[in-house]
Amino acid sequence: MSGQEFQQVTESTAGPAKPNPYGPNPADYLSNVSNFQLIDSTLREGEQFANAFFTTEKKIEIAKALDDFGVDYIELTSPVASEQSREDCEAICKLGLKAKILTHIRCHMDDAKVAVETGVDGVDVVIGTSKFLRQYSHGKDMNYIAKSAIEVIEFVKSKGIEIRFSSEDSFRSDLVDLLNIYKTVDKIGVNRVGIADTVGCANPRQVYELVRTLKSVVSCDIECHFHNDTGCAISNAYTALEGGARLIDVSVLGIGERNGITPLGGLMARMIVASPDYVKSKYKLHKIRDIENLVAEAVEVNIPFNNPITGFCAFTHKAGIHAKAILANPSTYEILNPHDFGLKRYIHFANRLTGWNAIKSRVDQLNLNLTDAQCKEVTTKIKKLGDIRPLNIDDVDSIIKDYHAEVSTPQLKSISSGNDEDLEAIDAGEPVSKKAKTSN
Amino acid sequence: MSGQEFQQVTESTAGPAKPNPYGPNPADYLSNVSNFQLIDSTLREGEQFANAFFTTEKKIEIAKALDDFGVDYIELTSPVASEQSREDCEAICKLGLKAKILTHIRCHMDDAKVAVETGVDGVDVVIGTSKFLRQYSHGKDMNYIAKSAIEVIEFVKSKGIEIRFSSEDSFRSDLVDLLNIYKTVDKIGVNRVGIADTVGCANPRQVYELVRTLKSVVSCDIECHFHNDTGCAISNAYTALEGGARLIDVSVLGIGERNGITPLGGLMARMIVASPDYVKSKYKLHKIRDIENLVAEAVEVNIPFNNPITGFCAFTHKAGIHAKAILANPSTYEILNPHDFGLKRYIHFANRLTGWNAIKSRVDQLNLNLTDAQCKEVTTKIKKLGDIRPLNIDDVDSIIKDYHAEVSTPQLKSISSGNDEDLEAIDAGEPVSKKAKTSN
Repeated sequence: MSGQEFQQVTESTAGPAKPNPYGPNPADYLSNVSNFQLIDSTLREGEQFANAFFTTEKKIEIAKALDDFGVDYIELTSPVASEQSREDCEAICKLGLKAKILTHIRCHMDDAKVAVETGVDGVDVVIGTSKFLRQYSHGKDMNYIAKSAIEVIEFVKSKGIEIRFSSEDSFRSDLVDLLNIYKTVDKIGVNRVGIADTVGCANPRQVYELVRTLKSVVSCDIECHFHNDTGCAISNAYTALEGGARLIDVSVLGIGERNGITPLGGLMARMIVASPDYVKSKYKLHKIRDIENLVAEAVEVNIPFNNPITGFCAFTHKAGIHAKAILANPSTYEILNPHDFGLKRYIHFANRLTGWNAIKSRVDQLNLNLTDAQCKEVTTKIKKLGDIRPLNIDDVDSIIKDYHAEVSTPQLKSISSGNDEDLEAIDAGEPVSKKAKTSN
Repeated sequence: MSGQEFQQVTESTAGPAKPNPYGPNPADYLSNVSNFQLIDSTLREGEQFANAFFTTEKKIEIAKALDDFGVDYIELTSPVASEQSREDCEAICKLGLKAKILTHIRCHMDDAKVAVETGVDGVDVVIGTSKFLRQYSHGKDMNYIAKSAIEVIEFVKSKGIEIRFSSEDSFRSDLVDLLNIYKTVDKIGVNRVGIADTVGCANPRQVYELVRTLKSVVSCDIECHFHNDTGCAISNAYTALEGGARLIDVSVLGIGERNGITPLGGLMARMIVASPDYVKSKYKLHKIRDIENLVAEAVEVNIPFNNPITGFCAFTHKAGIHAKAILANPSTYEILNPHDFGLKRYIHFANRLTGWNAIKSRVDQLNLNLTDAQCKEVTTKIKKLGDIRPLNIDDVDSIIKDYHAEVSTPQLKSISSGNDEDLEAIDAGEPVSKKAKTSN
């Protein structure tokens, strides 16, 4: 095909991009993407994680850390689950935290009567509404559910504390049944209604549709709870906010039944992209790493290697073409700024995919002086060795230094890369905890 | 509020639910949710993972495992990345796998000339189209991009192999520029155009809109590549298929630059819910665990505790109310069936959140005979100890056995739970690898 057949591409002359192209979609006039609240359920849903056994002291330590981070609510295991659960609930209510304390109970007066005596700021009531749960869990019909919901709700309200009514397994419940019960409890004045994807089956556009529909039926706030069995818990939460939900249930590292729910850190990664000012002003993002380490230690798991934000490689750039652009402008390959989370970015230059720009920045870090042509030549030597075995920083540095000696360029102080203070070099041979140490 | 004010809730009398309520949305007339293909990029994107150094032997082992699993394409690192990369590419092409072999190159004739000599079935060409990449990476304008794209595409086509043209950082590129270049390359007959969320900034509804729009401009297939920086890579892939994309880039465990891309296993968890017949007939799901272990070992990481499907707790049920329902019908709290992946489900009964139904099933497993009332009584004893310290199976078993001795019920063979063959009991005290062993 010859040139003239090619349709000329004209540079778009649109003015400066809007401040945040990843912000809320203007079409979502009910969006709460920039006005959401967090209900942390590490001490309720998280206690249902296979490895979780929290002592009273550990629960208090976690509750204080979450409060310091800035979560709006902290949800605790039902006081009827066990005697210790009840005592722990009372102990945490006495801490006088900024975050409101909630407990999570079945839709029974027996549970409600115990819950309201613990000192909580609110009660989260849940009952299964799907045919599965109605048949195999509590075995009650929708009329029974509505009647008991009304009794429990009016009782809790009479105590002057917040009340949320949530269905369980909402996405496998009959839509008419759901809207009917939500409309009923909204009328009698619940603070929130909850949608729960108890089995993790929902996908984002389903979530958006259900939230938008529910929003047209109730006047109270909508809270959403998403399990992560099919890997959609973060985006389902985001899409729910786009549709008008106001509150999202999270837990540290997402721990909960099975593979858990929307993780606190992962949701922060998603939300800071959409609403940087709101998120940075409201939550202490640099505390995420400490909170995750605290909970990971308590439940005896490791931080996943690919965990959002805190995964060891979340801010590591390896391919030569990536490293080049990152050195010129980090935004080229980063939508998240590690500084927002008290973290650093890494350029991984000690590997066979490295490029001469990454090596040049290393040359600068070593305060050596090589021309671009020389940097390219030494890069070729490094890539050759990288083909033979994994490289570490020492390998690369000695190749660079030997080469520098050969060419014996007069030693001049070079202009160092504008991003030096952001950068750490890492090698491939050791765990990253060590890598950071061996860097300079 | 008195009864008559309560709006009567009538049971919905809808007939039997449609076979799969989680299937493709009928409104998505272009949906490929039941007709998608996988391009595994573990040996390209995955090689850009910080810890990745694959020897030739390991690359071949991984390629064979992916081919056996059933991926449609295997994408390899550019042959110009290093001499060894080129040789490995040729070696894998010679294996005669069912999967088509692709290599991934910059939009340069220099790269294309090397690529077409390696024996690959197709070439994936990529070039940055966002203002960021055009400014800080290759520094070319859209006209240059279009011209070089046409030259490379026509050259590769002349060799009779597949060609894909992808923009890079598509979601930060100018829409008019994008559609213009895609329309141009579609006209000259590329096999696929690619959309890449290179920085992981996209959200599902954005993805749906872009794919739907692109679908109206090109006649070729659409491939999508999603990074996972904000935790949306799985749902973005799903939503892209709903919008009409046909191919999804994945890697084993999602390894790649930074936190990587859509994980193979995670996407399978999402897709089996939507298209069970298609997914089960096309891919060997029971191989996922082995492939993940193979790659995890090669790059020296652990399988994340909460990994989709293969995370140690993915099929573990803990809370009493969950255990009760799971024992009655696993679908109550499971959207995924562990058997589809060659895995088992666990009821975690040795903890203070346990319920008497879980304990009753344990009593049955022990072939003891207790009445429901007696099971409830012994459950109370177990929960009391669970408040004091973490429990293991031996703790629970001895409490049950002591209690059984006390009440000295005549030993009769009890009817065992219908799910016994599905169930394994686990305790909280040990790593799960051991748990399975200690189970019975």
